[in-house]
Amino acid sequence: MSLSYVDLQNRFLAVHRNKLFEACVIFVIVLSALVIGAKTYDIPASVLRLFELLDLGITLFFLSEIVIRMLAAGSLSAFFRKGWNLFDFVIVGASLIPVEESEMALLGRLLRVFRVLRLVSLIPELRILLSAFLKAIPRMGYVSLLMFIIFYIYAAVGSIFFGGINPGLWENISIAMLTLFRVATFEDWTDVMYETMTVYPLSWIYYLSFIFVVAFVFLNMMIGIVLDVLQREHQEFDRETGEGEAGEVHWIRDHLQGMEQRLERMESLLERFSGTRPGH
Amino acid sequence: MSLSYVDLQNRFLAVHRNKLFEACVIFVIVLSALVIGAKTYDIPASVLRLFELLDLGITLFFLSEIVIRMLAAGSLSAFFRKGWNLFDFVIVGASLIPVEESEMALLGRLLRVFRVLRLVSLIPELRILLSAFLKAIPRMGYVSLLMFIIFYIYAAVGSIFFGGINPGLWENISIAMLTLFRVATFEDWTDVMYETMTVYPLSWIYYLSFIFVVAFVFLNMMIGIVLDVLQREHQEFDRETGEGEAGEVHWIRDHLQGMEQRLERMESLLERFSGTRPGH
Amino acid sequence: MSLSYVDLQNRFLAVHRNKLFEACVIFVIVLSALVIGAKTYDIPASVLRLFELLDLGITLFFLSEIVIRMLAAGSLSAFFRKGWNLFDFVIVGASLIPVEESEMALLGRLLRVFRVLRLVSLIPELRILLSAFLKAIPRMGYVSLLMFIIFYIYAAVGSIFFGGINPGLWENISIAMLTLFRVATFEDWTDVMYETMTVYPLSWIYYLSFIFVVAFVFLNMMIGIVLDVLQREHQEFDRETGEGEAGEVHWIRDHLQGMEQRLERMESLLERFSGTRPGH
Amino acid sequence: MSLSYVDLQNRFLAVHRNKLFEACVIFVIVLSALVIGAKTYDIPASVLRLFELLDLGITLFFLSEIVIRMLAAGSLSAFFRKGWNLFDFVIVGASLIPVEESEMALLGRLLRVFRVLRLVSLIPELRILLSAFLKAIPRMGYVSLLMFIIFYIYAAVGSIFFGGINPGLWENISIAMLTLFRVATFEDWTDVMYETMTVYPLSWIYYLSFIFVVAFVFLNMMIGIVLDVLQREHQEFDRETGEGEAGEVHWIRDHLQGMEQRLERMESLLERFSGTRPGH
Repeated sequence: MSLSYVDLQNRFLAVHRNKLFEACVIFVIVLSALVIGAKTYDIPASVLRLFELLDLGITLFFLSEIVIRMLAAGSLSAFFRKGWNLFDFVIVGASLIPVEESEMALLGRLLRVFRVLRLVSLIPELRILLSAFLKAIPRMGYVSLLMFIIFYIYAAVGSIFFGGINPGLWENISIAMLTLFRVATFEDWTDVMYETMTVYPLSWIYYLSFIFVVAFVFLNMMIGIVLDVLQREHQEFDRETGEGEAGEVHWIRDHLQGMEQRLERMESLLERFSGTRPGH
Repeated sequence: MSLSYVDLQNRFLAVHRNKLFEACVIFVIVLSALVIGAKTYDIPASVLRLFELLDLGITLFFLSEIVIRMLAAGSLSAFFRKGWNLFDFVIVGASLIPVEESEMALLGRLLRVFRVLRLVSLIPELRILLSAFLKAIPRMGYVSLLMFIIFYIYAAVGSIFFGGINPGLWENISIAMLTLFRVATFEDWTDVMYETMTVYPLSWIYYLSFIFVVAFVFLNMMIGIVLDVLQREHQEFDRETGEGEAGEVHWIRDHLQGMEQRLERMESLLERFSGTRPGH
Repeated sequence: MSLSYVDLQNRFLAVHRNKLFEACVIFVIVLSALVIGAKTYDIPASVLRLFELLDLGITLFFLSEIVIRMLAAGSLSAFFRKGWNLFDFVIVGASLIPVEESEMALLGRLLRVFRVLRLVSLIPELRILLSAFLKAIPRMGYVSLLMFIIFYIYAAVGSIFFGGINPGLWENISIAMLTLFRVATFEDWTDVMYETMTVYPLSWIYYLSFIFVVAFVFLNMMIGIVLDVLQREHQEFDRETGEGEAGEVHWIRDHLQGMEQRLERMESLLERFSGTRPGH
Repeated sequence: MSLSYVDLQNRFLAVHRNKLFEACVIFVIVLSALVIGAKTYDIPASVLRLFELLDLGITLFFLSEIVIRMLAAGSLSAFFRKGWNLFDFVIVGASLIPVEESEMALLGRLLRVFRVLRLVSLIPELRILLSAFLKAIPRMGYVSLLMFIIFYIYAAVGSIFFGGINPGLWENISIAMLTLFRVATFEDWTDVMYETMTVYPLSWIYYLSFIFVVAFVFLNMMIGIVLDVLQREHQEFDRETGEGEAGEVHWIRDHLQGMEQRLERMESLLERFSGTRPGH
């Protein structure tokens, strides 16, 4: 064969970039999702066998697709440099693990479920949403840490005081934290409160202060951070395209710089001019 | 008759634009809504017959109103070019379908209910609200798709693991998705969780991670998008009217352009001037 | 007596503006609120009589306070020109209505409760909050109207289809609207849904679409409007004080105008200058 | 000993600023939190004794750490000038109070719980979050006051009318306020409403108006204030670093000032120039 390696790579690249191929991949992912969903229904054994064949076909398709993309990338390091490729590789690789025993079969089905996530890596708009979400994580992390500290303190206080009243809700600090999460979602929280108020009539202070701090203040901070991240991304986009208020401000800044230089040149001209005049 | 077609059209246009006519239409829509509402009460047969007459009258009124607007528009294509006209036409047309049998009577009443929606197409402020809402839909669509994927994955995992514990809640993937929607609205979600925790003590991770991702993060994204759309509409409005910060920035941009051109002219004057000087 | 009317008015004005007098008024309002609250407890008859005396005293105090403010204003029309004065007048006037009979006593107590609202008219920060709230009302009104139309349509559909299943929840359109409000607050909404799903298995579409439109989209619009009103008030404040981004933009706009005029003068100087040159 | 006091202070400062020392402090705080949490589980007496020893060690460590920081600060007044130092001092001091009796032991455990809060004073990001929260408090305070007034009025009305229907929920004003807080969190509020509607069929107006004012309008104001505070902090940060839209506006403002001065100089040059010309 006279085909060089570069020729082959270009061919794979052409396949990879083909719109039809992409539509094909999306179709197979959706099919794979439907098979996963259909399996949760009671289905006759014959259809189940068909599904197993389909499953094998889907697995092979994903395998060949990822191999094509690897070959198209030229080298493994070039392929793995992109985060989303690693993401796809892990998902496809995980569903290849042979799980035959009944014990592990559950895990095998679980790993196949995550193949639906490949939709996220394929559709650009979802990728943007997810990366906006990931950008907000560091700032949300500190808010979450602060929330965790508040939960921990309230849970410790709760299990110290209410542990004897209802062990099912306040037995130890981890059960108390789960109970507090329930209170934070307003789920039958008054039942929890009325129970402890029979022993400690003032325990409403505990619940109300907790709800006020966590459900009102904290949640607002979360909303604030997500909004801030969204607005910043938009301002950035506006600045680049020159649209909107942020775009106009950027335009003004750029043009002002030009005007400033022009003024500098004009002043030096005027000064030199004025200096050479006899009347000066 | 010596009336030309254009005269007739102008007359219909005059009727259509008449404030009194508009008030009349709003009155009939509200009346139609009241009849729909009144019919849901237990009413004597005599009043019911009156209502049927009223209903016929309302239907005829709507029919003639839409015909007037069609004639006023001049041509059918001009009439249907406006989205809201098509909207009105479908609503009025649907309530014309003759449904006499008891089976279809329900459908007939249903179609009449949607006549209330004509209020939206008549009141400009509601039209603006609805179009703001429609503008947000494409961006909300992708967030919804991402949410659907997350729901689907969680539902598949849920029906695989919890299907045997409570089939009523986790039997198959569609029932599991409904259960997860219930969890997302915090509606008795702890009952669902405590049940599965008796078999899988660690299943709280499943619920807490789901609530965190869907109810907190996802909802915030929705709020963020709606806010962003509202703010953008306002900035746009400000820029056009020259009010507010966005309006002032736009004013600055416009005037800066004029100043730049003036500076250019001045510099060329200065340069020519300086070039003709003997001392140069 | 040699005191002129203007002297008297100035004296009343001095009393009215006195910080101590204002503190006194706030103290009496809080006292009045405490008396209202205390009366809801089981109290012995002797204390009750004391409360009645206190109540009389408070009523007299409020009466004299409002008379002082009226006299300080100079004329009745000047007094009533301020909205908050009318607000106070109605509240104080209402609690003067003699209600002795047992039937009306309840109403009398009710009218006294509203005296607490006078705190809002006295504390400037609360007044600002309330007027920000009132400013948002027109725009919220249209969102509410749109929401009402959606509620009405869903309630009509609900009572047509589900009226026979549970008359207590869907009997007629007004009861159905109350049930839908309950669904919108996520209060045991799954119980309502599971009941109708036994007859119409697809009725989850009805509930999910309603929750999506009302609880998610609509609420976000409300948040968006309140935020927008708050931000606009701040930008306005910034522009006036010259602080923040909006303030800087305003400063830039003002100075740019000066620069533009100066450039115009300079260009005309240059042009005249250039016109008189022989080499030209 | 020939060590001067300043030498000693510098040594303590060096210890205090040491990264390893800081990590050590964080480790001990987390350890202390874990001990607090572990104590809420059923643990054998031998482990409990170990915990008591650990507790003593932690207390001594915190004591010496705060003494080192005091000595590093040079003087007590310099130490206490920083709010966070006072915060730490109170937390460490409180856990030193000897509580041996069974009655007070509960209080002793409680005071130790608050040692977890020292994490907030140690991690800068959490400190920033907390101070952003504290900045929002004054403005939130007035919203809370307004909300309290609304709660108080509704509670008074509720206990006057519904006190006889269900004393457990409406007996007096404080119980009624707790019930209203429950309604505001949508927790089984329809049960409360349906009960009073049997006596007062129109009482749904009471609940719906309350929910509309408090849960919708008020909560939005809270969200608005938190968002506003967050945005302002960011604009401030942008202005200082010169990034983002606010940063660019600030840059424009600064440069415009320079351009204005240059223009002034140029005009005066031009004018002088023009004045000396013979043709003028």
